[in-house]
Amino acid sequence: MVNRSAPRSLGLWLGQLPVGMFNDITDVPGVKVGHVSLIKGSDPLAPPGKGPVRTGVTAIIPRPGNLYRQPCWAGIEVINGYGKSIGVPFIQEMGLLNCPILLTNTLSVSDVAHGVVTFMLQQNPEIGDDARTSNIVVMECDDSFLNDIRGRHVKPWDALFALQRAGRGPISQGNVGAGVGMSCFQLKGGIGSSSRLVQSGRGIYTLGMLALANFGQLRDLIISGVPVGEFLAKQATSYIPGSLILIGITDAPLSRWQLTQLARRASLGMARTGSISMTGSGDFCLMVSTAPMENCHYLSDWQLDEFFRAIVEATAESIWNALFWAETMEGREGNIRRALPLEKTLQLIRNWKGGLRQS
Amino acid sequence: MVNRSAPRSLGLWLGQLPVGMFNDITDVPGVKVGHVSLIKGSDPLAPPGKGPVRTGVTAIIPRPGNLYRQPCWAGIEVINGYGKSIGVPFIQEMGLLNCPILLTNTLSVSDVAHGVVTFMLQQNPEIGDDARTSNIVVMECDDSFLNDIRGRHVKPWDALFALQRAGRGPISQGNVGAGVGMSCFQLKGGIGSSSRLVQSGRGIYTLGMLALANFGQLRDLIISGVPVGEFLAKQATSYIPGSLILIGITDAPLSRWQLTQLARRASLGMARTGSISMTGSGDFCLMVSTAPMENCHYLSDWQLDEFFRAIVEATAESIWNALFWAETMEGREGNIRRALPLEKTLQLIRNWKGGLRQS
Amino acid sequence: MVNRSAPRSLGLWLGQLPVGMFNDITDVPGVKVGHVSLIKGSDPLAPPGKGPVRTGVTAIIPRPGNLYRQPCWAGIEVINGYGKSIGVPFIQEMGLLNCPILLTNTLSVSDVAHGVVTFMLQQNPEIGDDARTSNIVVMECDDSFLNDIRGRHVKPWDALFALQRAGRGPISQGNVGAGVGMSCFQLKGGIGSSSRLVQSGRGIYTLGMLALANFGQLRDLIISGVPVGEFLAKQATSYIPGSLILIGITDAPLSRWQLTQLARRASLGMARTGSISMTGSGDFCLMVSTAPMENCHYLSDWQLDEFFRAIVEATAESIWNALFWAETMEGREGNIRRALPLEKTLQLIRNWKGGLRQS
Amino acid sequence: MVNRSAPRSLGLWLGQLPVGMFNDITDVPGVKVGHVSLIKGSDPLAPPGKGPVRTGVTAIIPRPGNLYRQPCWAGIEVINGYGKSIGVPFIQEMGLLNCPILLTNTLSVSDVAHGVVTFMLQQNPEIGDDARTSNIVVMECDDSFLNDIRGRHVKPWDALFALQRAGRGPISQGNVGAGVGMSCFQLKGGIGSSSRLVQSGRGIYTLGMLALANFGQLRDLIISGVPVGEFLAKQATSYIPGSLILIGITDAPLSRWQLTQLARRASLGMARTGSISMTGSGDFCLMVSTAPMENCHYLSDWQLDEFFRAIVEATAESIWNALFWAETMEGREGNIRRALPLEKTLQLIRNWKGGLRQS
Repeated sequence: MVNRSAPRSLGLWLGQLPVGMFNDITDVPGVKVGHVSLIKGSDPLAPPGKGPVRTGVTAIIPRPGNLYRQPCWAGIEVINGYGKSIGVPFIQEMGLLNCPILLTNTLSVSDVAHGVVTFMLQQNPEIGDDARTSNIVVMECDDSFLNDIRGRHVKPWDALFALQRAGRGPISQGNVGAGVGMSCFQLKGGIGSSSRLVQSGRGIYTLGMLALANFGQLRDLIISGVPVGEFLAKQATSYIPGSLILIGITDAPLSRWQLTQLARRASLGMARTGSISMTGSGDFCLMVSTAPMENCHYLSDWQLDEFFRAIVEATAESIWNALFWAETMEGREGNIRRALPLEKTLQLIRNWKGGLRQS
Repeated sequence: MVNRSAPRSLGLWLGQLPVGMFNDITDVPGVKVGHVSLIKGSDPLAPPGKGPVRTGVTAIIPRPGNLYRQPCWAGIEVINGYGKSIGVPFIQEMGLLNCPILLTNTLSVSDVAHGVVTFMLQQNPEIGDDARTSNIVVMECDDSFLNDIRGRHVKPWDALFALQRAGRGPISQGNVGAGVGMSCFQLKGGIGSSSRLVQSGRGIYTLGMLALANFGQLRDLIISGVPVGEFLAKQATSYIPGSLILIGITDAPLSRWQLTQLARRASLGMARTGSISMTGSGDFCLMVSTAPMENCHYLSDWQLDEFFRAIVEATAESIWNALFWAETMEGREGNIRRALPLEKTLQLIRNWKGGLRQS
Repeated sequence: MVNRSAPRSLGLWLGQLPVGMFNDITDVPGVKVGHVSLIKGSDPLAPPGKGPVRTGVTAIIPRPGNLYRQPCWAGIEVINGYGKSIGVPFIQEMGLLNCPILLTNTLSVSDVAHGVVTFMLQQNPEIGDDARTSNIVVMECDDSFLNDIRGRHVKPWDALFALQRAGRGPISQGNVGAGVGMSCFQLKGGIGSSSRLVQSGRGIYTLGMLALANFGQLRDLIISGVPVGEFLAKQATSYIPGSLILIGITDAPLSRWQLTQLARRASLGMARTGSISMTGSGDFCLMVSTAPMENCHYLSDWQLDEFFRAIVEATAESIWNALFWAETMEGREGNIRRALPLEKTLQLIRNWKGGLRQS
Repeated sequence: MVNRSAPRSLGLWLGQLPVGMFNDITDVPGVKVGHVSLIKGSDPLAPPGKGPVRTGVTAIIPRPGNLYRQPCWAGIEVINGYGKSIGVPFIQEMGLLNCPILLTNTLSVSDVAHGVVTFMLQQNPEIGDDARTSNIVVMECDDSFLNDIRGRHVKPWDALFALQRAGRGPISQGNVGAGVGMSCFQLKGGIGSSSRLVQSGRGIYTLGMLALANFGQLRDLIISGVPVGEFLAKQATSYIPGSLILIGITDAPLSRWQLTQLARRASLGMARTGSISMTGSGDFCLMVSTAPMENCHYLSDWQLDEFFRAIVEATAESIWNALFWAETMEGREGNIRRALPLEKTLQLIRNWKGGLRQS
């Protein structure tokens, strides 16, 4: 039997660019990630609102220091807007991020938001006093297939815990944090991450992605170019529309205009996993630069291509990482999401000849 | 002394189109509005977080029946996105509204959202069980000039109360509901509403607007074409950036595409009050049609002009109504927002000759 | 009888900010404007395609030097997209202008574009050889009420002539260049321009607007806050949908992101003239900064408000200037567009009391 | 040696859905395509403006009858706006197409536009007389690597010829029409097309795509999941930024809102070929429905997923078809674009094991 492991360690083709030390979003200097995983009440016969709990919170802090007082440039792309994330219009208008990024389940957005507001108020006594209010960013996917989402088991303090726990990498992936109860391609999904090193005229920069992967039908799954989903689809358990949240961070000096252009390329990485961005999928990409805002020596628009390559590759690998790390989980009403069947998948990939007839 | 009264009752020119019976958003059949006003703890020396409370919630229910199961077409326009409203991307993507609309202060969005989620879950046991989750819409302005916004005095149950209390018109305007602590043009702002009757080929329709008016500098204020703000500006108390939330509802059979076009015209009404949509202003317009969604006999695009006229006029009058109805209020740290000085304003209007030199 | 003259010289209220020396777009250092007016074949009984010719071209060159090699940051706002202008998507994507701006009638866009391409190829031998191609910007309104637009009387060389003739101000307004045959509020429209001086932390900047005004119904016309259109509307000749092209230029160091935000405020100035942005109106605003692109010391977002005020005021005044300067013209099939009746208009304004009943 | 042939005939995996009879855009009932190919003046030493000519025009007529009087619903997506296509804002605003679609090279857009205007005026005597003007749609890519693009060899009558020649399928692909001089992944590109059959509740619909493929670097090329470009890249001739124009047509009854959502998925198909949508690439997708506009029984939003699958698959296959059909061409200054090396490519695909190490 093959143990869970990253596709990269198996040798799968995942793009051209080199990866960072941990091949996750914390390869970007200063980025911290914290998970709170809530798994309990496993009795699958419990009524709605009484468990089982298969959910959590993930916090991403892009940079040390006070984000409210020293924001980052940011750009956002709504790939398909069927989602209930908070904080999107502000970023679209101002092109900046002045708070940490939280991920959780759809119906717990208000609780997590409450926690983040508390965090912001504590950290910044001037908010709502002699300064303006703050935007907050809480993004979400629907984990109701496995999780008793109606129970709203994530509490404001779970958001605070996730922020407190946020640390440097390597980070946990798969069934952790907001990813605990997520499904992807009718298999077990969750948190995945990846990074790329980008060489530009003036230096080497890192771009890291983190995916909360909770979308798609198995029939559409493509791994490293091979439509394995077609061959695995018969084993799929029921489909419910999901979502994909993508958080990208880079230390390259890019303007908000450029970060917005970068965020728009994330869908091209998503496409490599077979996604067709289904009607009910809330697919968003938020892209942040940790370079000082007052730095005005942005890279030129013509230096962006290598970053586009990086975001496409890192997005696809993040999603695959979520699938490769996530383990089978049983949840609400006996629903089961099986892990990607590794051996079968690798066998399909190894024998694939692009569909070419034998010559 | 002139008592508070609507500009229409004073004879001011407010456009060409006829208005509905109450000249408010409840002239649209089926629309209900509910306010919860929170005014207490008036000691202006109380520390932040301890009062005074000058805030509230306003609920708008566009149509009787279960909105989750029978949604409405909707369109949204982000005039300036410096705001923290919830639920915008879903409406931009899907062009539909399947929940009530709540208004409150910026830092209470998460609490009100919590209340609305509770409301949706109670009303719809299928949400998160064998149906998808629901979008929720909570829009906000910053009332921190008068209100102890850091105290987060609005609770989830206040949202539920506002929904319960929602009733037919005529509605209260000025310092009520979410409008309690709002400022507009450095004067006291709040809730305002207006309506227009629109004749089209097939009948007469109603378009109603409701504004949560909390924006602008006094120097910019224009009333019925007269730049009264220039003459009143010396008396202005301090400016902090605010916002404008506009909710429009019509019973006309308009598609989501057309409602989006309609929402984009609201800014033209806002402009008639002198707004320049300042950098820190979160200005949004949500436009909803209560006509049955399965109705496919939409009006033609070439019949929209009269609706454009209606939304422009009703938007401007809603804002002016907020100013004319709102009364002077003292709040946090002794801050005072004075009501629009009616007598002085009417005198300025009466003597105005467009700036023309006497001939 | 009152002669044609600018509303400012009559003393009308047109905003708060000071204007530049000529109160037109050439107040911005380096801006040049050139008109080619085509007026001939006045026999109103001539068949379509044979005259009369009531059209032209206007060229705007924002800065001396080679724009292709040294572009300007730019932003564009599509207020209502019912238009056939060329060059919009490139500016939306890249936020830059690398060519002059040409205005003409709808069916002559391709001829003028041909001329501009010729101009660009002559000036830049590298285009299409060892460099990329160039974007070109040709914007348009429909002058078919007066002009034999089917005759396509504007030729590529007219675009070249307009570019050659481009010079410093004060510029001609009213029935000149692309404005020759335009209608506005069912009156004679055309070219109008205005400017504002903007004081910011680091200096005084100029913002200039130029309008090609060809939109609206007389019933909606508002001048300096007075709904004169309502009283003049009975004399209106037939309405056909038109458009409004707004070109703004400033010497302030603003980024493409900020210029886009600025362009979005132009509609607020348009609204002050009574426009409701009718379905068939192609309303666009292009905003350009002539500050060096490599300058990275952009003004802060919080310094934009005064520029918003400037664009709102200058937009409204540009449109009014077009109306005040344009003279009555007879054209195709005996159609007549009358000039704004000055004496009657001023009388209406002088006697207006905001609609207030006498007290 | 392997002759040029479609990847489908070789057995390559190209998706899950069945294809139409010809596997091109003319599988959609009523669609006609016409090419004018301009190939002459092959002396590679001729000065710019004097040849060689490697360009053309392609006309796509989505439906029989008069499009101006009976338009189609349409939606457009600007994937990356570095392009000079005409007619985009009108479609974005109105969601309709009322003219044929023409494709050509960048610097010939004005000439082709001139031709289309002539076509529209001839067909519709009411345009510019007692009716409004018409939008026209001319989309473009830069073929200057092979073509003397500065010579502007496409004339207005070539557009008229392409419209006259437009006929039913199967259509020519590769080096034809607008595709004559195009490059794709630093190989010879051009015109490609594909179709899919989509089963929905009420019937079977056809979706056809046509690509003008002129983008990308060889290192990025992926065919049927295999990164063949990485292995072929050493042989690449020089890269210049290009573009991708995608035209999709379906007979399914979809609203303009839904067609816009559909168009946004085209990029996901583009991504399967390895595109990262480079900075200098003008990537657009225009999506049209030929169902009667007055038909209001649109498919439900929840029936769109199968159409999303169709557009993703047909987009990727269209681009691959362009590559597989295009033949090596020599052009300007001795520049050569080689055809995709078929034998080498198929060998790479056959031996590919997803990068997996041998087990």
